[in-house]
Amino acid sequence: MPIQPVLINGSWREPKSPIGHFQSITPETGVAQAKRYPISSFTDIELALSASYWAVKELKSVSPENIAKFLELYASNIEAHAALLSQTAAIETALPEKSRFLDIELPRTTDQLRKAARAAKDRSWCRATIDTKANIRSKFSPLGGPVVIFGPNNFPFAFNSISGGDFAAAIASGNPVIAKANPGHPGTTRIFAEVALKALKKCGLPLTMIQLIYHLQPEDGFKLVSHPLTGATAFTGSRKSGLALKHAAESASKLIYIEMSGLNPVFIFPLALKERGKEIAEELSQSCTLGAGQFCTNPGLVVLLKNQDTENFIKILAEKLRSTPASILLSRQVLQSLSAAVASLKISGAEIVSGGKKIDTKAFSFANTLLRVTGDKFLKKSKKLQTEAFGPSSLIVVAENIKQMITIATHLEGNLTGSIYSHTDKEESLYAEIEAILRTKVGRLINDKMPTGVAVSPAMSHGGPFPATGHPGFTSVGIPAAMLRFSALHCYDNVRKHRLPAELKDKNPYGKMWRLIDGDWTQKNI
Amino acid sequence: MPIQPVLINGSWREPKSPIGHFQSITPETGVAQAKRYPISSFTDIELALSASYWAVKELKSVSPENIAKFLELYASNIEAHAALLSQTAAIETALPEKSRFLDIELPRTTDQLRKAARAAKDRSWCRATIDTKANIRSKFSPLGGPVVIFGPNNFPFAFNSISGGDFAAAIASGNPVIAKANPGHPGTTRIFAEVALKALKKCGLPLTMIQLIYHLQPEDGFKLVSHPLTGATAFTGSRKSGLALKHAAESASKLIYIEMSGLNPVFIFPLALKERGKEIAEELSQSCTLGAGQFCTNPGLVVLLKNQDTENFIKILAEKLRSTPASILLSRQVLQSLSAAVASLKISGAEIVSGGKKIDTKAFSFANTLLRVTGDKFLKKSKKLQTEAFGPSSLIVVAENIKQMITIATHLEGNLTGSIYSHTDKEESLYAEIEAILRTKVGRLINDKMPTGVAVSPAMSHGGPFPATGHPGFTSVGIPAAMLRFSALHCYDNVRKHRLPAELKDKNPYGKMWRLIDGDWTQKNI
Repeated sequence: MPIQPVLINGSWREPKSPIGHFQSITPETGVAQAKRYPISSFTDIELALSASYWAVKELKSVSPENIAKFLELYASNIEAHAALLSQTAAIETALPEKSRFLDIELPRTTDQLRKAARAAKDRSWCRATIDTKANIRSKFSPLGGPVVIFGPNNFPFAFNSISGGDFAAAIASGNPVIAKANPGHPGTTRIFAEVALKALKKCGLPLTMIQLIYHLQPEDGFKLVSHPLTGATAFTGSRKSGLALKHAAESASKLIYIEMSGLNPVFIFPLALKERGKEIAEELSQSCTLGAGQFCTNPGLVVLLKNQDTENFIKILAEKLRSTPASILLSRQVLQSLSAAVASLKISGAEIVSGGKKIDTKAFSFANTLLRVTGDKFLKKSKKLQTEAFGPSSLIVVAENIKQMITIATHLEGNLTGSIYSHTDKEESLYAEIEAILRTKVGRLINDKMPTGVAVSPAMSHGGPFPATGHPGFTSVGIPAAMLRFSALHCYDNVRKHRLPAELKDKNPYGKMWRLIDGDWTQKNI
Repeated sequence: MPIQPVLINGSWREPKSPIGHFQSITPETGVAQAKRYPISSFTDIELALSASYWAVKELKSVSPENIAKFLELYASNIEAHAALLSQTAAIETALPEKSRFLDIELPRTTDQLRKAARAAKDRSWCRATIDTKANIRSKFSPLGGPVVIFGPNNFPFAFNSISGGDFAAAIASGNPVIAKANPGHPGTTRIFAEVALKALKKCGLPLTMIQLIYHLQPEDGFKLVSHPLTGATAFTGSRKSGLALKHAAESASKLIYIEMSGLNPVFIFPLALKERGKEIAEELSQSCTLGAGQFCTNPGLVVLLKNQDTENFIKILAEKLRSTPASILLSRQVLQSLSAAVASLKISGAEIVSGGKKIDTKAFSFANTLLRVTGDKFLKKSKKLQTEAFGPSSLIVVAENIKQMITIATHLEGNLTGSIYSHTDKEESLYAEIEAILRTKVGRLINDKMPTGVAVSPAMSHGGPFPATGHPGFTSVGIPAAMLRFSALHCYDNVRKHRLPAELKDKNPYGKMWRLIDGDWTQKNI
């Protein structure tokens, strides 16, 4: 079987002198699928970069309306290919075709693309700021180089490098994209790219605006993110890869946004446990096993107070986890990392309550796992015990007393989220203490709810302090905020009025864009 | 004479085991002043960091109104000390006491502090975003660690680490500050710190909120910016120091904003030169020599078309520069760097039109300098010929033809500003070509005006793509935008209403804060 083509410079073509190839492995059987995908050489990457250079130039004369039209058409075309996409993704990832892809991830993906389309048309995202007296006007604009997107393994649609949140944000803010497929679902990514290319053609947009490579060697990845032509990089994935790319990009002073792993600590206060322990156990069990625990917002660390309620809670939770069938993991790597992480947690003093081992089958499957450790032990090895076990595994920390619960909070690393469950109308002072510590350690602070489920809302922050991400001021989910990562602040000082971009002219471009004029947000003309 | 005290942990005290000391050198004579300032050991820095930790905690219960009160009182107290501050700064920097400090920089500084006070009170800066349906709310909030500020040598008031733009932005957004004085004006900085401390006391704010050290060894600087307790660093100064600090901070995944040097290219189109060459020469000459050229927005590179008008222009400009008395530079280092940069430009093919050498006096003085180079030569050594000559020195590039003028634009590095002078009603197509290239290379695009003069406006961008700064999405001048550098995006998901910060509660905190509620900017309650 011939090697699959790459999408470079506007068309599907043979990879130039590829380094090698890879095949998608069926997680259910461990067997390689027939199709061979190229590991691109730097020749292909350079071709993609120079094609992007022209895309940047051409995009200057493309209207936001036309970009919006593309995003909308792309969303509709994805819907038209829903069956094929879901089928392919299910085979490649072992995630359920209907309940995951057709019912949840596909609508989420098209919703994101349509929200991005609305934001592009609406233009308010660019935060036009006008000082009429000084005649200084500014707004956010595209970067002037392509956005390179590395998609994660766990969201083959909603965070796919060529259809997901980063993609939608980069395109809607006017940048071309070089997508680097996740090698876990190359076939799915290929279909998205084909659908996208057709939509581009129909809208008369530069075909170089979207390019796709499947895989590259680490060194070539470093060269790509640090290349002079690159505008910015968005990476979602493991801490190890994220940090390596971050180092390469920053050494060349190139922008990079990394969204890495985390534990998403959940504090359950004693009176909340007494009040509604069973419900919380049910919520937690569902949240832990959702998508086989392969979510960046999976609740990996749960802090409880030592008492009988906690023992009961752990017992109920363990039962629930045991009675929930183990899911199949995305890849052999996920299985291996998870096994290694659980082993490392055990070495650091955590005990297995339930699960803790690979299921004896050909499939990449690991038992739903619950571990526990005392607060004392956690505090002694807090760094090691914050090792992420990506997959269906959570660690319960049982604090000796309230004071220790607070101390545990101070030892937590930066995270995407932090949840607090407290009694319906008590435990306010404990809440205040924990909140004060947790607030600057997480991007999203949650009450009475598990961290899984990241709404695509303008008010969302799917970000957080390092090591959750590289900059706590940005979010990778939520339109329009996510778009600001891929834009530069362009100021126009004394620029003649007819030369200003439409967003900064006296007349509101279409009468409804929000602009900050002389200190007031308004939709009016000047 | 005893060594000067540092301001650490709320009081002035002797430095702990200082590495050594330094003295301010009078630029007029090259003679050291009597006062000895410490080069702090890391012991002092660690003390400052741990004091900041407590400041962060205490600041959580301080109201924005109280922070605003402090900023306003501080501004008034600075005015009350105007004579002493201006006198001291004039001695330390050789910049003119009245025309520079009393008349310009002091009002600018107090204006910035007052604008920051208004922004703190107004609260709109934090961009509260509320999704009522999903009950997700977010806003920008302090980082949870001190902002370390390294002030530059060239703005002893308006960018002083303890009174300038970064200081105002960091404090107004609720962060404590560790100020690292510029060793060029330690006495001035000391007075500011004293005035600030008194205002803090009067407002009942945590005294650890503002700390001051004068100097440190480079390695200790790296340790400071990469320290786990540090929230972020703001640096304004040379590229060399900026890049070294950036590397240190980023290796530890700590935020750092660097505002470095640049050339601020000025394109003067041929018909503009024909139309108003004399006026432009006058503007350019003034802009080149303002503050002895020691501005980050000094016009260091001027691009002209080869013809007789250009020759006349260069002649007039050179005459003006020759007839403007050479000013005294800020320090021996500035003089040495300038001499070295001019020598390097000459080696790379630039010719001296005027000036080009040190003035024969005890003072640190360099003749107002104009160099020229052909477009051909510039394109051959475009990197070396973009060496910044910080001080009263500019390089004219004479393009062979219009096509080459455009090519020169493509060879420019990232800059804070780019100016274009064109004919009153002609040269639109050339403008479009140059603008398309320049736009993504500069933070602030200017028409018919020189780059010096950076208005403190909400629409200002004093930033730009690397190497002008480290991130093109931020500005260091302009309230409230500059405040966003020192804040994290804090999301509240399903958080019980009474626990929300005032800015995110249903009721608008004081009825006038702008918030983005369900997609509309409004001052209303929910």
